[in-house]
Amino acid sequence: MTADGETREPVRSDARRVRLTGPFTLESGAVLPAVDIAYRSWGRLDPGSDAVLVCHALTGSADADLWWSEVFGPGRALDPTRELIVCSNVLGSCYGSTGPTSTRADGRRWGGDFPRVTIRDMVRAQAALLDHLGVRRLRLVVGGSMGGMQALEWPLLFPDRVDAVAAIGCSARHSPWCIGLSEAQRLAIRADPKWRGGAYPADDPPAGGLAAARAMAMCTYRSWHSFEERFGRRLQDSDDDLFAVESYLRHHGEKLIERFDPATYVTLTHAMDSHDVGRGRGGVARALGSLEQPVLVVSIDSDVLYPPVEQKQLVQQLPHGELMRLESAHGHDGFLIDVDPLAAALAAFRGERAAAA
Amino acid sequence: MTADGETREPVRSDARRVRLTGPFTLESGAVLPAVDIAYRSWGRLDPGSDAVLVCHALTGSADADLWWSEVFGPGRALDPTRELIVCSNVLGSCYGSTGPTSTRADGRRWGGDFPRVTIRDMVRAQAALLDHLGVRRLRLVVGGSMGGMQALEWPLLFPDRVDAVAAIGCSARHSPWCIGLSEAQRLAIRADPKWRGGAYPADDPPAGGLAAARAMAMCTYRSWHSFEERFGRRLQDSDDDLFAVESYLRHHGEKLIERFDPATYVTLTHAMDSHDVGRGRGGVARALGSLEQPVLVVSIDSDVLYPPVEQKQLVQQLPHGELMRLESAHGHDGFLIDVDPLAAALAAFRGERAAAA
Repeated sequence: MTADGETREPVRSDARRVRLTGPFTLESGAVLPAVDIAYRSWGRLDPGSDAVLVCHALTGSADADLWWSEVFGPGRALDPTRELIVCSNVLGSCYGSTGPTSTRADGRRWGGDFPRVTIRDMVRAQAALLDHLGVRRLRLVVGGSMGGMQALEWPLLFPDRVDAVAAIGCSARHSPWCIGLSEAQRLAIRADPKWRGGAYPADDPPAGGLAAARAMAMCTYRSWHSFEERFGRRLQDSDDDLFAVESYLRHHGEKLIERFDPATYVTLTHAMDSHDVGRGRGGVARALGSLEQPVLVVSIDSDVLYPPVEQKQLVQQLPHGELMRLESAHGHDGFLIDVDPLAAALAAFRGERAAAA
Repeated sequence: MTADGETREPVRSDARRVRLTGPFTLESGAVLPAVDIAYRSWGRLDPGSDAVLVCHALTGSADADLWWSEVFGPGRALDPTRELIVCSNVLGSCYGSTGPTSTRADGRRWGGDFPRVTIRDMVRAQAALLDHLGVRRLRLVVGGSMGGMQALEWPLLFPDRVDAVAAIGCSARHSPWCIGLSEAQRLAIRADPKWRGGAYPADDPPAGGLAAARAMAMCTYRSWHSFEERFGRRLQDSDDDLFAVESYLRHHGEKLIERFDPATYVTLTHAMDSHDVGRGRGGVARALGSLEQPVLVVSIDSDVLYPPVEQKQLVQQLPHGELMRLESAHGHDGFLIDVDPLAAALAAFRGERAAAA
């Protein structure tokens, strides 16, 4: 990989980076003169190979084998001994791909001036990466949360390249509820004067604002029950006034400051807010109704952010949709915590496809 | 009332303020040399009168006839032509009662140094106010959210003064879920460098941090469905990138900046987090099990903050508990929005009591 002094946490040493050829025109009309995409692959990469594409969530990276390790491995749902698996850092992120921490043509950092990107822009950048790698078909596109949004966009943008889709803990369009929670988090970042309109130096970011945003987000990723089970009203130390749950949220805020960039957080939450499979396609029902691929839709029963009603709507509108209900006390993050039943459902979904083929 | 230059929005011109006699020792052991309580009353105030006490929520005030107007009036659940009704601004708030915007003995503003107060401290200050007014018995203590916590504490602290309780949209103890959401909001306030450790001047508060906290809170006061119905994915103006829900949350943040104080927000959210009717009483079950009063527990079916499981637990542990399920798409704020069925349930609950008496 190319060294990137701007990126908070370097992508893994075995991640590679590709510079896409030519300028990249975003859905907004803005043009990025050059786009780098960091990616990782597992299994044998031959030109012309089919592949499975894994799409990451908001603060994720190309290292799917780390953040979704239970799904990876021989005999598992994603088996690099049987097939090629690819995961790339999304356009707009800070783990090796072009985004707000990248440098503009004039040598300055993009920061808050990085143009708005959409989920579709991310998918188009992934497709360009796959072109570069010589991967033509995707046996499966799979992802949760923001990754699930990408998975849904894939067969709509590239109907002839996708065999099957698994979209986990997401919706056909980002709800006003999710947009509102995103905006509250962005307000916390912008309220930190170190935001400086997005033009902060790399070594003095609005860290407090990002930590507050992360604490808010962490609550919405979990649930009343998971916090009750894990923390109750336990104090962090018996001699002070700090509840264990407060300490936990502060800790998560501080951890994110070390590995993530505030302008990137703003850029990617806006991208999630842009998510609407019906935009420019005559509405959600028409867009989803056009899909010929089988789509596994995973609904996390305690998901506060993307409640089960959203996945039910998805399946009702998909001609070949299949609903899996993931029982989890952990809320939205259930897809990263209760992975075993999810991996089993994914394997079964793929098995059905293989048997049918 | 006494003029109070520190208070963001003056209490209503017809609100009065009482200085409680003697120092006031808080549950923490800290001592406030003097405590003022702002209050309003409706109906005839004679020494020895019985009264109904209304308790307000986090950013509320003594003006219950304004924020709960549908419950007030001749023939309604709270009828000043039939009985005396009292509502006071809680200890620690900024609408006329002693709190972070008040001045210390040395003439400086308390700000973030104001000692931690608890729901029990609030109730004890209300009791001292009622002593001053000559009100001995409370026919009913009623409140929602933080007001409901006070309503539950009343018969536990003063078993001989309370005839009946109505607690709406609250729990026996503040959950780690609610504590976490509180702390995320406090992090946003503290992340604003204008917080200055709580020692900010009255005319330059951490307004951006408070606005971000409010935006977060507003989401949790509503629901996925209410935002969906009200905003959908509508843009604020057709020619820009701002969603209507984002504009709404910014607006509510800015409105709160004009009328509320950040250190008060921190103080009162900590007070809510302290809420635990079982503390020092051998646990929740034992405390609630000791209550001889009838308690109407109102559960808002779409409440994200205090989900129905909490009111179910309350009623299971109350010897004379009665559960009312308020159907509302509006989430926690349902008790301020879908007031008609709530007022009817309250009137029915009171009617049963009157018939039994």
